Amino acid sequence: MLPPEARLLGSAAGGYGFGVAEKGNNMECVFCKIVDGEIPAVKVLDEELVLAFMDINPASRGHMLVIPKRHAENIFEISENDLAAVARAVKRCSKAAMEALKADGITVLQLNGTASDQLVPHLHVHIMPRWENDGLAVSNWEMKPGNMEEIQDIARKVREHIPSV
Amino acid sequence: MLPPEARLLGSAAGGYGFGVAEKGNNMECVFCKIVDGEIPAVKVLDEELVLAFMDINPASRGHMLVIPKRHAENIFEISENDLAAVARAVKRCSKAAMEALKADGITVLQLNGTASDQLVPHLHVHIMPRWENDGLAVSNWEMKPGNMEEIQDIARKVREHIPSV
Repeated sequence: MLPPEARLLGSAAGGYGFGVAEKGNNMECVFCKIVDGEIPAVKVLDEELVLAFMDINPASRGHMLVIPKRHAENIFEISENDLAAVARAVKRCSKAAMEALKADGITVLQLNGTASDQLVPHLHVHIMPRWENDGLAVSNWEMKPGNMEEIQDIARKVREHIPSV
Repeated sequence: MLPPEARLLGSAAGGYGFGVAEKGNNMECVFCKIVDGEIPAVKVLDEELVLAFMDINPASRGHMLVIPKRHAENIFEISENDLAAVARAVKRCSKAAMEALKADGITVLQLNGTASDQLVPHLHVHIMPRWENDGLAVSNWEMKPGNMEEIQDIARKVREHIPSV
């Protein structure tokens, strides 16, 4: 996450942005301002479609963010082409972080909507280098078997909402 | 996550799999067995390169996993083509879960290495539907400003390990 303004911006944003067609960049968006060079960032990778920079409130040593340069609020809005470019950059930055920082693992996290604690409404993928027993509480949820009938029912509902290719 | 065997398999796997060239599927891998139909799963999406199915130990209602059909242990190993297919499927399944379950948000999480709590050593992306104040502790880490000199230094090291395209 970047400056305090970003948090205000994030917490003020409601919904999950379906149908909000953004052509070009969003003038009010902190991450668009980083893309445009109006706000500084410690960059790691700068490509045609994608930017990666350091999170200045790192949850772990080497915590980075990868964003599409073209504004998209979340995974529902981003184009498949930009998403693929983001995924490739996440792979490259993750591998580089493992090597450069001699990390033991990498947590990749991408939050959509304030219910998911997304703070800046411009899609960003967190890359968090991990070390054995680092205690970072983002990946150790309690494992409890679910109710199989309910799981079957949910799957049926979700399938109905997946358009065939 | 699937059956208990998966956990044993996961916790026994060390390293992060650089250079482990897997041609075709891994006979010992629980997720490869799901791909091959040897172990049942509640499927949500079944495409040429990708499978999505319900997590039977759901961290939230509608918790799903998206995997590449071709075995890859983690993000360091997966091909860019398979990774792009996984990302597209994550987008489609996330959108479907929002609509089908009237969720408020989606957490997308992908763990690499046992230090990151990866339990099954076959790349999988968690899709966790979220609701306001659901208390799921995967995205609310403490925000503390980092040391900017250290962050600059880390970025410099990471950049050195990113090959130019």
